[in-house]
Amino acid sequence: MKTVLTVAAVSLLILSSGCAPSVDPNPPVKVVDPLPSWNDGEAKQAIFDFVVRVTDSASPDFVPEPERIATFDNDGCLWSEQPMYFQFIFAIDRVKAMAPEHPEWQSQQPFKAVLDGDMETLAASGEHGILELVMATHAGMTTGEFEIVVKDWLATATHPTTGRPYTEMVYQPMLELLDYLRANGFKTFIVSGGGIEFMRPWTEAVYGIPPEQVVGSSIKTTYEVRDGEPVIVRLPELNFIDDKQGKPLGINSHIGRRPIAAFGNSDGDFQMLEWTTAGEGARLGMYIHHTDAEREWAYDRESHIGRLDRGLDEADARGWVVVDMKRDWASIYPSD
Amino acid sequence: MKTVLTVAAVSLLILSSGCAPSVDPNPPVKVVDPLPSWNDGEAKQAIFDFVVRVTDSASPDFVPEPERIATFDNDGCLWSEQPMYFQFIFAIDRVKAMAPEHPEWQSQQPFKAVLDGDMETLAASGEHGILELVMATHAGMTTGEFEIVVKDWLATATHPTTGRPYTEMVYQPMLELLDYLRANGFKTFIVSGGGIEFMRPWTEAVYGIPPEQVVGSSIKTTYEVRDGEPVIVRLPELNFIDDKQGKPLGINSHIGRRPIAAFGNSDGDFQMLEWTTAGEGARLGMYIHHTDAEREWAYDRESHIGRLDRGLDEADARGWVVVDMKRDWASIYPSD
Repeated sequence: MKTVLTVAAVSLLILSSGCAPSVDPNPPVKVVDPLPSWNDGEAKQAIFDFVVRVTDSASPDFVPEPERIATFDNDGCLWSEQPMYFQFIFAIDRVKAMAPEHPEWQSQQPFKAVLDGDMETLAASGEHGILELVMATHAGMTTGEFEIVVKDWLATATHPTTGRPYTEMVYQPMLELLDYLRANGFKTFIVSGGGIEFMRPWTEAVYGIPPEQVVGSSIKTTYEVRDGEPVIVRLPELNFIDDKQGKPLGINSHIGRRPIAAFGNSDGDFQMLEWTTAGEGARLGMYIHHTDAEREWAYDRESHIGRLDRGLDEADARGWVVVDMKRDWASIYPSD
Repeated sequence: MKTVLTVAAVSLLILSSGCAPSVDPNPPVKVVDPLPSWNDGEAKQAIFDFVVRVTDSASPDFVPEPERIATFDNDGCLWSEQPMYFQFIFAIDRVKAMAPEHPEWQSQQPFKAVLDGDMETLAASGEHGILELVMATHAGMTTGEFEIVVKDWLATATHPTTGRPYTEMVYQPMLELLDYLRANGFKTFIVSGGGIEFMRPWTEAVYGIPPEQVVGSSIKTTYEVRDGEPVIVRLPELNFIDDKQGKPLGINSHIGRRPIAAFGNSDGDFQMLEWTTAGEGARLGMYIHHTDAEREWAYDRESHIGRLDRGLDEADARGWVVVDMKRDWASIYPSD
């Protein structure tokens, strides 16, 4: 579906492109909509309004280019996260692939549960069990080896219900938004609870976001010289959890300045939006609300993945925009 | 002093600029030397050779722009570091400024030594004493407050022997090198043992390096909401030391890909150069050797600051270029 731009949006686009408005209203100005997968409405308008405010040099809210930092959560904000985080599916697939070298896993939990496909026992193993799975599959190798494992998995693995490769389950409206912001001088960053080294091998090709602009959770590493060749080895020990309060801390550590726009979809992004929008001048905080059970998934307050509860309660009072996926997005995935 | 370019350098510059060589050798091609503060010699030639190899699309060593990552140590590589690290002078100045609020420091080491100007006792307090000074002066405030303290100090403090502001004690040849690399599509990063939040407030203005491209040592932080305003508070606890083996780890964590060029001046940079130059294709590892006691300082194997010992021993065998400041640099500081 092609979006018909409102007059207001067209004026804003003209303003933002630096062109003078046409004196004669006919023939109608033809503008290429930079966000064709967004339906007209408050959310789309809020994006246009914000970008004009910070990029128009005559605006009191003008922001110089180097300070136009926008941060995006990944799971549930740039790509889907159901029926479970894709990185967790990766860990499960890795356990299966590595099982022949680990005969002890046939009787050792939580590995046995994975190999038996016993998701109930796996879930019952709790945070500790999940951490054990992640460490067994994400550590004990060099960074270079892990990168190859991730790329190989993404090249072949498919989603359990859609049958699609995971990198095709990214949101077309968000791809357009990333492009639109970059075209307006923004530097776009991922700030995700997901593993930083799980994302970096593919974010540049899929989102146009280079590795140095990816912030995420991490495990500890060590530097060694093996047979004359230096390597960085991934250790089975948590280093940093880039979630909740961790997100502003990760932003501070990696970016070193406060974003002016932040995009998330869960209470794990609350502090990132809070930190971003507490800064002076024009700010944009935006939640993607999963409301489309037909084209994607519908979940919020009660979900064990991507729970959005406090965020829904407080978004209005804080001036954050809530995107209703069903209403606001004309398409979900690039192939739609 | 204006540098006269060799014919080889001129050809390389022409190649690197993408222009066809002139058919008629007369009149002589006039090229603006991008590195006028570098004297002709092996070091300057090595820089030109490397940049041509990685930027000429016909070269077998061509590197796409996003992968042109260059990392620079800061202390002793981009600015001076004698008679002690400038950040340590900052800590000493802060102890003096904060002393009225800390009457206990009059009798408590290592603070008493600082207040008495007793450098011998201060030195004897060792690493533990130095850490205590750093924590007392760098923690216990918000990131925003610390940024103001750093900026205020740099705006007024002057170096004990040159009398110059510290940000004027940056190396003119390195400023030219940073510009030259960026003009050739490189992304330039600082990777320093110095404090990441001590550098970020000024590296963009002084070096053209934005905060998100600064990697350094850090202390732990926490996120709080105080009277409705979110703040990031600096805690008196070490988080990461970006030195020696820490440098490749910091690079991996912040940048997420291996640099193709690295510049340092001490054994603390050894692993950064090792990691960088162990990658495939054309690589440039470069040491700045402090050899100019008249215009700057001369020190290497025996220095307690910026010791360069193993690096001098192994540079040749590893193909790293050693810059002799006295011989290779026509000027040291921008005001020279």
